[in-house]
Amino acid sequence: MYDFTFHIPTRINFGRGAISHLSELAESGNKALLVYGGGSIKRNGIYDEALRILGEAGVEVTELSGVEPNPRIQTVRRGVELCKEQGIQMVLAIGGGSTIDASKVIAAGALYDGDPWDLVLDSSKAVRALPIYSVLTLAATGSEMDCFAVISDMTKNEKWGTGAPCMVPTMSVLDPTYTFSVSRRQTAAGTADMMSHTFENYFTREKGADVQKEFCEGLLRTMVKNGPVALAHPDDYDARANLMWAASHAINGLVGAGSANAWCVHPMEHELSAFYDITHGEGLAILTPAWMEHVLSVDTVADFARYGRRVWGIQGLDDFAVAHEAIAKTREFFFQTMGMPANLRAVGITDDKNFEVMAQKAADGSKGSYVPLTKDDIVEIYRAAF
Amino acid sequence: MYDFTFHIPTRINFGRGAISHLSELAESGNKALLVYGGGSIKRNGIYDEALRILGEAGVEVTELSGVEPNPRIQTVRRGVELCKEQGIQMVLAIGGGSTIDASKVIAAGALYDGDPWDLVLDSSKAVRALPIYSVLTLAATGSEMDCFAVISDMTKNEKWGTGAPCMVPTMSVLDPTYTFSVSRRQTAAGTADMMSHTFENYFTREKGADVQKEFCEGLLRTMVKNGPVALAHPDDYDARANLMWAASHAINGLVGAGSANAWCVHPMEHELSAFYDITHGEGLAILTPAWMEHVLSVDTVADFARYGRRVWGIQGLDDFAVAHEAIAKTREFFFQTMGMPANLRAVGITDDKNFEVMAQKAADGSKGSYVPLTKDDIVEIYRAAF
Repeated sequence: MYDFTFHIPTRINFGRGAISHLSELAESGNKALLVYGGGSIKRNGIYDEALRILGEAGVEVTELSGVEPNPRIQTVRRGVELCKEQGIQMVLAIGGGSTIDASKVIAAGALYDGDPWDLVLDSSKAVRALPIYSVLTLAATGSEMDCFAVISDMTKNEKWGTGAPCMVPTMSVLDPTYTFSVSRRQTAAGTADMMSHTFENYFTREKGADVQKEFCEGLLRTMVKNGPVALAHPDDYDARANLMWAASHAINGLVGAGSANAWCVHPMEHELSAFYDITHGEGLAILTPAWMEHVLSVDTVADFARYGRRVWGIQGLDDFAVAHEAIAKTREFFFQTMGMPANLRAVGITDDKNFEVMAQKAADGSKGSYVPLTKDDIVEIYRAAF
Repeated sequence: MYDFTFHIPTRINFGRGAISHLSELAESGNKALLVYGGGSIKRNGIYDEALRILGEAGVEVTELSGVEPNPRIQTVRRGVELCKEQGIQMVLAIGGGSTIDASKVIAAGALYDGDPWDLVLDSSKAVRALPIYSVLTLAATGSEMDCFAVISDMTKNEKWGTGAPCMVPTMSVLDPTYTFSVSRRQTAAGTADMMSHTFENYFTREKGADVQKEFCEGLLRTMVKNGPVALAHPDDYDARANLMWAASHAINGLVGAGSANAWCVHPMEHELSAFYDITHGEGLAILTPAWMEHVLSVDTVADFARYGRRVWGIQGLDDFAVAHEAIAKTREFFFQTMGMPANLRAVGITDDKNFEVMAQKAADGSKGSYVPLTKDDIVEIYRAAF
């Protein structure tokens, strides 16, 4: 097991009615910036309920709406300005990972003198932030319980992850009923995202971390079981609850600390989103089986065979056969069971003209990963996924 | 999944040399109470190293040594007096669960006006505590990462658990090499203790908590794999590391929140320790298979069959046969593989004269457990384990 520091300070309030805990925002002051996306929280009643609880707790609200699915630095800048102008004391995100990610950089930007894009390019500059709270409406990114944020500047085709201890939410509300109305497409993309987080932690050169390996396999089995249930029965409470809680643990440090190497599929996908603004989870699903096939070798086959046996229950003694079947099962799960787009063309990427430049950036961003990937490796993976 | 609140604020520094993080105590002041047990930390060098690091950090140390394996309230009272007399600002435990448990109640007692035994009998009175730090030297109780403490008053044959948010350690150092010198007997008892914590969370009426169930099974497989390796090769780093990290997660809320019912084997064992001062982990190992046989029924057989299939890899379609074999495997693991005493007589409990009074107290302490246990049930379990 590698040496590590583990720290998850976020308080999680999980279950039906957990939104009542928003009264706890009063611990941080009486002026909150409420950040949300396209307005679905107004249709489903969460917005009204939140305002009622905050009002009763004496917390005054300024609003920033319209956070994009791949949140833009321009929106973050507007949030930072609001915080500075109005003496905001805390940031409350209501939404999915994009909204929470934007809120994190807004909260750090509010206590930073320069342009918040600096905090995206260099996380060491994020040393202080306003307290961050969240109400989660989509099980996917795990942003509700980690310190990471991914922000894009589409004018430059740039999408980068950042993260700092000051950006971990203080308290998050996880009410699975809030995800009953998530569409089939977003449910599938969220499941692929949380599975990809787990894969990034699971495939590692470190062979002595049994706890983390077991937890990864448990999360993957939970996702594989409950993803299809949530598609078939959107209001199945336990399916939504297990997906929500599994997504948080896939990235909060539990399965990565002491075990994981640098991530690689995420950097490859970030380039797709930066150049083509596609849905992150769909990009991950498309790239994952292509990446698995590319890195399968005598050197890695034992890991993929273990994955096949433990997550998919594949029998057989031939490691390569089990590994190939595991990859086929992964493909079948994403593209048939979950009904996701199966290649880059299906999400509107119809030419390969940016592959070289994207691959170079992804190679720079994934140094130290499970199997080291050159620019040429990544171009091959893009082509295999095309 | 049940509704829950989840919060693990402890910072964990894990790995070789993690003791260097003791310099962080300076964040809480410059006067620490150092609490430890019988002095093994002086023989293995941890004591000297800790004093060196604290000295360099400008932290002055007052010592309380001699904490007992089942820590006594009398020792806690001495610690509280030292804190109050000397203006202690933080408590540092170096040792196993007993030392950390005592330190927690000392830290709370230091800011409490009455007798610290009040805090053991009524956890709601523990509302403030000095910051608590720990250096762990035994993988077993999980006290390094939870809010619980178990304290005894042997003059009254009383042993009770207490717990409050203020008693969670601020930071714990987990260096697996510190457990290389743990004896075979204590390694086995520690493994049984962490397995019992996992069982208490695993066997539950709640059937919709996949994440927690999967994590419990992963922990149990990790313990079953690594316990015997640690016996055979006491300085196997990964075996010690996996046991240490699994023990923390068995009780820090991860596998209990949203899933567990009230505990019952622990209350039964606490009576054994309160009356006979036996080793906690040995008492748990002795009671566990007897408890399993007692509660196995048409109502619970699916849970025990799942346990057999997933933890022990038992094949077969007959749930009762698999369940019985799983219990036999549990027995074999504790009493043969791990070499633990197999019944109450083997730990010096040679008569049944206290069974009735112990059983009544254990029945009171386990209300709401997986299978409700009356006084008569518990007497039967004690007799079966005799």
